[in-house]
Amino acid sequence: MERLFGAIPGVPEGAIFASRKEAAAAGIHKPLVAGISGSQEEGADSIAISGGYEDDVDLGDEIIYTGEGGQENGRHIKDQEFIRGNKALAVSEVQGLPVRVLRGAHKGNPFAPESGYRYDGLYQVESHWHTVGKSGFKVWKYRLLKLEGSLPPQKSLAPEVITLPAGTQTPKRVSSTIQRVVRDTKLGRQLKKLYQYQCQVCGLQIKTEAGFYAEAAHIKPVGLPHAGPDVSENLLCLCPNHHLMFDKGVFAINDDLSLIGIPGKLYKHADHIISPDFITYHRTTFTDF
Amino acid sequence: MERLFGAIPGVPEGAIFASRKEAAAAGIHKPLVAGISGSQEEGADSIAISGGYEDDVDLGDEIIYTGEGGQENGRHIKDQEFIRGNKALAVSEVQGLPVRVLRGAHKGNPFAPESGYRYDGLYQVESHWHTVGKSGFKVWKYRLLKLEGSLPPQKSLAPEVITLPAGTQTPKRVSSTIQRVVRDTKLGRQLKKLYQYQCQVCGLQIKTEAGFYAEAAHIKPVGLPHAGPDVSENLLCLCPNHHLMFDKGVFAINDDLSLIGIPGKLYKHADHIISPDFITYHRTTFTDF
Repeated sequence: MERLFGAIPGVPEGAIFASRKEAAAAGIHKPLVAGISGSQEEGADSIAISGGYEDDVDLGDEIIYTGEGGQENGRHIKDQEFIRGNKALAVSEVQGLPVRVLRGAHKGNPFAPESGYRYDGLYQVESHWHTVGKSGFKVWKYRLLKLEGSLPPQKSLAPEVITLPAGTQTPKRVSSTIQRVVRDTKLGRQLKKLYQYQCQVCGLQIKTEAGFYAEAAHIKPVGLPHAGPDVSENLLCLCPNHHLMFDKGVFAINDDLSLIGIPGKLYKHADHIISPDFITYHRTTFTDF
Repeated sequence: MERLFGAIPGVPEGAIFASRKEAAAAGIHKPLVAGISGSQEEGADSIAISGGYEDDVDLGDEIIYTGEGGQENGRHIKDQEFIRGNKALAVSEVQGLPVRVLRGAHKGNPFAPESGYRYDGLYQVESHWHTVGKSGFKVWKYRLLKLEGSLPPQKSLAPEVITLPAGTQTPKRVSSTIQRVVRDTKLGRQLKKLYQYQCQVCGLQIKTEAGFYAEAAHIKPVGLPHAGPDVSENLLCLCPNHHLMFDKGVFAINDDLSLIGIPGKLYKHADHIISPDFITYHRTTFTDF
């Protein structure tokens, strides 16, 4: 059965379930006990969080989540390994896959529902790292951030019940500049797979421990007033450097796929049709070439 | 006199001014007539928008702004050039400089104040391009997006009065995945200048028509629970590729600045002190090296 990433049709954000079994039946979070749903090949499609796990930090739109394994009878007895669910969450990070979050009731967590379990929408995995837990063993950690377009958390933040690591200050949210927003879609992921994550300009293939990384770049931007379509004819598989350089008009593409602004020629897979209209739009709109 | 970027101390967002002169005296937008404040060397620090200009689109937290010049007596008589204010806005884009927005009263614009001028906080320039205006001459365009942490626009959107280009659809905001958030600060810009925007790993210097582009990367992340400080000892000047690879643990840095995970050695300017503590934190936390 195919693993479903993203929203489940017919299940609105905020939906309440009496049990994990009900949430599983609705397709929100399939495992009845495990916190992470996913495989290390496909990525993780959902997590469950109760706020009860001492190492987790639930800030509503930001969750610091602890990986699985290394425990017996609720006690850490060995290092957590970078396999199964732990690797799956890192794959979701590198591939830009959305992760559904199911929150379970827990008195200590102001973002948890009063009772039962609540579907709280889609998050992205922003980063992962490992640390040494209170028990002295290695644990994997994941920062999940609520995706734009999702609803805000349902309860207001009660700072006194949030457990932050000793000595840390309240996170500062000001003066950060979002410079690069990379949209990721199923179409983009298919294209990246077709190119084996190699940049169509330089051939670079970035290999992380959770798989390859590349970016799907729209040739004619999707935002207004350009209103380029989200179709593979309007997409390129690029490394971050050439994505930025393409967006900023450092180079453009001629109809014969030779490059202007930088030397070289765009590599194109035989199964990938690129529309000359979109290339022309980019060239004449974003550069003076 | 130094050009001031960002918020003006003592002037809160939402502040109302009776005239452009008052807004200029407060330091929000210095020019009394021009829409763009800035120079092509330093970048643009503010713009004024009334919604009265037929080519502008004001969506509140998103503005599509038209460049300056090419007009005489209110009529386009020649191409707008990529100089002065027009280049200044592109410099702000590439350097990640915040732009103050001053909105003037205008009946046709639901985001404009009832009367006078309102300071509406900080925006970033997301992209720029050129197009052919209604008059047949080239005009420069800029998409400005409200920065995170700013207040929302004060009036609700009245879609019927928004002028969108004919044939375009309402912008879709869903299913976009922010994969990379690059913080930019004065400190980061100073460091990038020290390195002349060359990547400390590969030496790449990305040259756009509005200046060089590089990214200031925190070695120990500033977010919780890492809580790395925003100091130059905790910063690197990297190209987008090596920034991503560093953040995803593809490579790390030894105390002698040799790299692990990829070949090579980190280049370090004599005036840049890098803390071994932060390098060690990154190496032991984000990789298994």
